[in-house]
Amino acid sequence: MTPASETASRVPTAPLLVAAAGGTPAHPPVWFMRQAGRSLPEYREVRKDVPMLQACFTPDLVCEITLQPVRRHGVDAAILFSDIVVPLVAAGIDVDIVPGTGPVVASPVRDADAVAALPTLAAEQLDPVAQAVGLVRAELGDTPLIGFAGAPFTLASYLIEGGPSRHHERTKALMYSRPDTWHALLGALAEITATFLQVQIGAGVAAVQLFDSWAGALSERDYREYVLPHSTRVLGAVSGVPKIHFGVGTGELLPAMREAGADVVGVDWRVPLDEAVRRLTVPGGPAPVVQGNLDPAVLLADFDAIEREVRRVVAQGRAAGGHIVNLGHGVLPNTDPTVLTRVVELVHGLTP
Amino acid sequence: MTPASETASRVPTAPLLVAAAGGTPAHPPVWFMRQAGRSLPEYREVRKDVPMLQACFTPDLVCEITLQPVRRHGVDAAILFSDIVVPLVAAGIDVDIVPGTGPVVASPVRDADAVAALPTLAAEQLDPVAQAVGLVRAELGDTPLIGFAGAPFTLASYLIEGGPSRHHERTKALMYSRPDTWHALLGALAEITATFLQVQIGAGVAAVQLFDSWAGALSERDYREYVLPHSTRVLGAVSGVPKIHFGVGTGELLPAMREAGADVVGVDWRVPLDEAVRRLTVPGGPAPVVQGNLDPAVLLADFDAIEREVRRVVAQGRAAGGHIVNLGHGVLPNTDPTVLTRVVELVHGLTP
Repeated sequence: MTPASETASRVPTAPLLVAAAGGTPAHPPVWFMRQAGRSLPEYREVRKDVPMLQACFTPDLVCEITLQPVRRHGVDAAILFSDIVVPLVAAGIDVDIVPGTGPVVASPVRDADAVAALPTLAAEQLDPVAQAVGLVRAELGDTPLIGFAGAPFTLASYLIEGGPSRHHERTKALMYSRPDTWHALLGALAEITATFLQVQIGAGVAAVQLFDSWAGALSERDYREYVLPHSTRVLGAVSGVPKIHFGVGTGELLPAMREAGADVVGVDWRVPLDEAVRRLTVPGGPAPVVQGNLDPAVLLADFDAIEREVRRVVAQGRAAGGHIVNLGHGVLPNTDPTVLTRVVELVHGLTP
Repeated sequence: MTPASETASRVPTAPLLVAAAGGTPAHPPVWFMRQAGRSLPEYREVRKDVPMLQACFTPDLVCEITLQPVRRHGVDAAILFSDIVVPLVAAGIDVDIVPGTGPVVASPVRDADAVAALPTLAAEQLDPVAQAVGLVRAELGDTPLIGFAGAPFTLASYLIEGGPSRHHERTKALMYSRPDTWHALLGALAEITATFLQVQIGAGVAAVQLFDSWAGALSERDYREYVLPHSTRVLGAVSGVPKIHFGVGTGELLPAMREAGADVVGVDWRVPLDEAVRRLTVPGGPAPVVQGNLDPAVLLADFDAIEREVRRVVAQGRAAGGHIVNLGHGVLPNTDPTVLTRVVELVHGLTP
């Protein structure tokens, strides 16, 4: 495997990495969360007989799916095709991904005994993921590959609720009622997540994104007390590549998510990027780097409306020290993929 | 029917009305969004053979369900048992409420012709609602009854999507692509909503709450352009009682929601009340009145944790000109109702 520093030196002028480092790239870099997935017919084709988790542990399939949006759209980064629960599955936790439902945990984790019984994750258990990263890198050329992990809070919610949850009520009840058990659980998940990212970096990803999909369900106060120490532990355990930190509905949490150790903070569409930059700026510090923040629903509108919104996002992003153009959440499944390609062409014609 | 001014004079010292007017009540007023509903066994009993919409148009059942939480918990207000789609149904739009799904619209409204074909709502079509308000008032004594309506954006999302929606993508696509059609639709819904609230005020409710459940899916910019004029129209069309305006995840929208004409702005748990007060304060204006904002999930925790959070909410609410204690969203269905009663007792023992 190639050390991360050598990886970085292989793609020094890639617009995404230039922007992530606070520089001005040749053109604004753009990629889309969930670009590898349901919006693409070629994805639905290769996945039609393969369950999600089987796909995530099959290196050549991960490689193919990861590359599909790069080939089709000409985006400035690939994102490793995976799922938030992959490291849990690799560690031996019984989780399945049920179509139409999402992850289903066979034995939800709701007390101290269940937390104590959680397995740890050894790097070797992630060999298929490392192999997939190697395959992708061999095909990608100078386009950076972004590694991927779910953050401890989001993983904890799946484990405690037993699946996707709208209100995270068992999660929050445990958090408020049993803080010791809570912190033990998030500590264990931080270790697993750190290992997951370290393996990807060791295999050569050029950046990582930590997704805390559901952190926006928390107030800043609770985020700082119950979550921030663990996400900080994860981001502190990985080095050598830029670290992107993202959640939805996190307007109140942006400074805390930066403090966790992020080089780039992802912003959803509810907060304009110039306002996000204001919230993220530390007195005397460099201008923060942001990623985002086109509303994915905008991509269902007429292209005139899309173009107007894309131009606005790029213009507002100029307030930042660096800007990676993206959506404010994942691509919606019924997005027309030709629209994504047109957005990439549009962004590439704009001035950073 | 009793004019609103006489209604207000009947209950001048009710803590909720004192707080809504920016005064200091004898004790902090408290009620719970969705207090009349699924958390109560006596509610499940009376509803077990009655479909939701049938219940909403049966005055003695509306009366019973509205009174149940007042009897049980001793809350400082009743909230009229109803549903966001009730005025649409009354106007003759084919909407059903399907258990486990929510409202289902037979013919979604997605173009200018469908908007032009929408019926208007005459006050007489709401006679069962007016009768229910009269029955409740006769039983309530000095406890104020809060009237209820969904705001135009939330109603529009149901009509356009055809039912509940996570991403509101067709709604936003119409909003961005066909602004004329959009504004015509929201204008029609504002008329219907204004009539719905006027009928309730005419029948004697002591306050109204406009629920824009899903406004938090919008940026402030889009809210101001596409929604605010219509919610302003609704709140401007009703008078004589305090007007509460609430949505979930609206930290970015609080000033705009006040500007719509709200006397009281509801706040969810993501923004502490003292920070909400800061955002809502107009230079030179009176201190704003707020409602909220305990996380409903907290009620699933141990009572020690609940008490700590309730005390924090009441303390932070002292920054406001007036504070109505409530949750930051509706009561979750599996909340233990005895906990709600204990929270009311706790709040009533605190200093406003």
